[in-house]
Amino acid sequence: MRNILIIGAGKSASYLIKYFLEKSHSENLHITVGDINLESAQKLVGTHENASAIELDVFNQESRQAAIKEAAIVVSMLPARFHIEVARDCVSFGKNMVTASYISDEMRALDDAVKEKGLVFMNEIGVDPGIDHMSAMEVIDRIRDNGGKMILFESFTGGLVAPESDTNLWNYKFTWNPRNVVLAGQGGAAKFIQEGTYKYIPYNRLFRRTEFLNVEGYGRFEAYANRDSLKYRSVYGLDDVLTLYRGTIRRVGFSRAWQMFVILGMTDDSYIMENSAEMSYRDFVNSFLPYSPTDSVELKMRHNLKIDQDDTLWEKLLELDLFNPNKKVGLKDATPAQILQKILMDSWTLAPEDKDMIVMYHKFGYEKEGEKYQIDSKMVILGEDQTYTAMSKTVGLPVAIATIKILNGEITTPGVQLPITKEVYRPILDELETFGIKFIEKKVPYFGYNHDTIV
Amino acid sequence: MRNILIIGAGKSASYLIKYFLEKSHSENLHITVGDINLESAQKLVGTHENASAIELDVFNQESRQAAIKEAAIVVSMLPARFHIEVARDCVSFGKNMVTASYISDEMRALDDAVKEKGLVFMNEIGVDPGIDHMSAMEVIDRIRDNGGKMILFESFTGGLVAPESDTNLWNYKFTWNPRNVVLAGQGGAAKFIQEGTYKYIPYNRLFRRTEFLNVEGYGRFEAYANRDSLKYRSVYGLDDVLTLYRGTIRRVGFSRAWQMFVILGMTDDSYIMENSAEMSYRDFVNSFLPYSPTDSVELKMRHNLKIDQDDTLWEKLLELDLFNPNKKVGLKDATPAQILQKILMDSWTLAPEDKDMIVMYHKFGYEKEGEKYQIDSKMVILGEDQTYTAMSKTVGLPVAIATIKILNGEITTPGVQLPITKEVYRPILDELETFGIKFIEKKVPYFGYNHDTIV
Repeated sequence: MRNILIIGAGKSASYLIKYFLEKSHSENLHITVGDINLESAQKLVGTHENASAIELDVFNQESRQAAIKEAAIVVSMLPARFHIEVARDCVSFGKNMVTASYISDEMRALDDAVKEKGLVFMNEIGVDPGIDHMSAMEVIDRIRDNGGKMILFESFTGGLVAPESDTNLWNYKFTWNPRNVVLAGQGGAAKFIQEGTYKYIPYNRLFRRTEFLNVEGYGRFEAYANRDSLKYRSVYGLDDVLTLYRGTIRRVGFSRAWQMFVILGMTDDSYIMENSAEMSYRDFVNSFLPYSPTDSVELKMRHNLKIDQDDTLWEKLLELDLFNPNKKVGLKDATPAQILQKILMDSWTLAPEDKDMIVMYHKFGYEKEGEKYQIDSKMVILGEDQTYTAMSKTVGLPVAIATIKILNGEITTPGVQLPITKEVYRPILDELETFGIKFIEKKVPYFGYNHDTIV
Repeated sequence: MRNILIIGAGKSASYLIKYFLEKSHSENLHITVGDINLESAQKLVGTHENASAIELDVFNQESRQAAIKEAAIVVSMLPARFHIEVARDCVSFGKNMVTASYISDEMRALDDAVKEKGLVFMNEIGVDPGIDHMSAMEVIDRIRDNGGKMILFESFTGGLVAPESDTNLWNYKFTWNPRNVVLAGQGGAAKFIQEGTYKYIPYNRLFRRTEFLNVEGYGRFEAYANRDSLKYRSVYGLDDVLTLYRGTIRRVGFSRAWQMFVILGMTDDSYIMENSAEMSYRDFVNSFLPYSPTDSVELKMRHNLKIDQDDTLWEKLLELDLFNPNKKVGLKDATPAQILQKILMDSWTLAPEDKDMIVMYHKFGYEKEGEKYQIDSKMVILGEDQTYTAMSKTVGLPVAIATIKILNGEITTPGVQLPITKEVYRPILDELETFGIKFIEKKVPYFGYNHDTIV
């Protein structure tokens, strides 16, 4: 039996473990799930004969190393900042390793040692990062192999609520870490390149510089720019590309409404509000509006944000019960962002029967023999329920498939890496298709960036 | 002869040194001016028989300590972060010390040692901080001594261009560090309290939440909120006050126009722009606007900022030559804020004959025997020329006067302090009046905060 150690039994581990358990007989696997909370681990393995749950505190060197020594390969599903201890042990004990997280500087620093031992440390192999890398590189390599020269790459991903569960005016519910949603876009200007010109969008304009995306069968979406669209420029071999843009997908209208929170300062996580525990939702809103001895919070809000009386933005605010003078925030020493998150969680938490949805959209522009072409490639994945979500499926399956392929010697090139080589993405994308994770490609006329202006 | 050591012969030292030199005979003073640039020091002392210039590198312990040992009192006019080395030596050698800077945590930590040695370390005794503290405390103490209870304190200061030199559409020129002007308001939400309610303004709204101020003989001004209006709440004994607000004064219309730069992201100092040296002013503007194959930078700007064709905002932009495709930025690896500063310095640098102006405006609200009252107190100081500026006068004179009064044993209470006690502010304000630095007080009806709404 080959022992796979999975560290971290969180939300995204459900599909991953299901995949391993189903393969445990044919692939001769034993699955060990370690978590700081033994119950969480036990819940995921159930009573399966080829699986066991252990208590594992990643900061307890002795138990961590004991578990890693026993493993044939290690999958770390911990938050990204906790991988490094595991990674160092994997180097020491000569174990391959898989994570769905961005490669940290510390992780990258292990590259020489990993190569020296002939190990494979596969990272960024979830959905975003992960499926985005693989699906993009598959098309980019194909275009190049056919003599095309890449001139444009745009890529968008969104974690959303499935259409059947899309029941609020924002067309949004929290399907992943709510805190990341509240803080999205903060920490510096968004940077990208359009038709050869570098462009920068400050946080206060980020949600007002969106573009629309149509996905057949699912209608219209919008996207706002990610922080650094240029991060993978060299990695993808796109140094000469004229347009490079990455974004986050929301339903149309979300960003324009979210902008209200940005403008008022409600997403700020840098200071603590006075009396936050005792404050009502209405007080919270009023903190960001000028004092008036006569005017209502509602009128001050409409006036400050210039919201017309018949603008649907207003309905969105009312739906959140934002002006309620009786609902207390109840969080001590909270930042505006923490309070906003609390208010949004009242409205945007998934109901037990709700399903989620992952949408990914790539645009590839290229030149061949003097002509310009464009391929649009789109993927939509729906969740099954609140355990087997679209998010856990699209994160967990690529991790799981990569793990088995490394274990079986089908992926062998050593080093700290992400899945951008044919050796890696080809077999994984093929197997993902058998689970319904596939892209629909369409050739479209080349529009360049700003097609609304031209057509 | 009593030796006064002045460290730092910068812009604000002119009036200070002039004051000392004029008093050198009657007060039996020798003035030693030390600067890392010997010429700067020499220029300020001239050929005066009671003065000498020395080269002094504050990081050279030997020469620094030698100079301090020789002094009867030390005045540090260095940038605030350099005071601490001087302060530690002053403790060691038992010398009193004066600075115009905010008390740093490091400086405050010396308080016990300073008291133990019976020394006076007077700080925050320039204009803002300085004259604002003294003039405010004088009125606050008077109100309290007469049985009044403070309910409102608002305080505004601005360094501006004098009316006779006010020749551009922005009604603004750089009379002090331009970098501070470009970065003003960044680093966190502005916080204050109005009629008992805490209020917060994020950076993206700061320049749109101004209030107007009228100063007789000088017309109308506007003010935007400072970062932390509550900083001196306890220091001034205003813990129970309902309204506490501090702001920065500009001419009307400045803030609404400045907001364009904020919204576009041009004041951002956190990242370096690609190809900044080769970029034209027009390219700089275009970096913050969406790509278009057809529309001009001008139209994109008008559209993005919703500037009507007849809005005077537009003239202000044209005056800066912001759309010039031929003027190069010429700064390597520059941030947006650095580039904006460069562009503004083309237009906003004082001409040789230009004069500056300092405006200060306090509002004091109080209750007495069930009635509410308000006192408005205003000060305007005009510069004489580009050496004897209003800024150097209002910073230098209080420092100089305090220095002599400490030297003469008229200010004796030991400790690291700021000028908020009667012992300190009373004689200094009296002497400042003889130099024309005085406030005009007026009793006005109590309006509370938001008087525009009520009257």
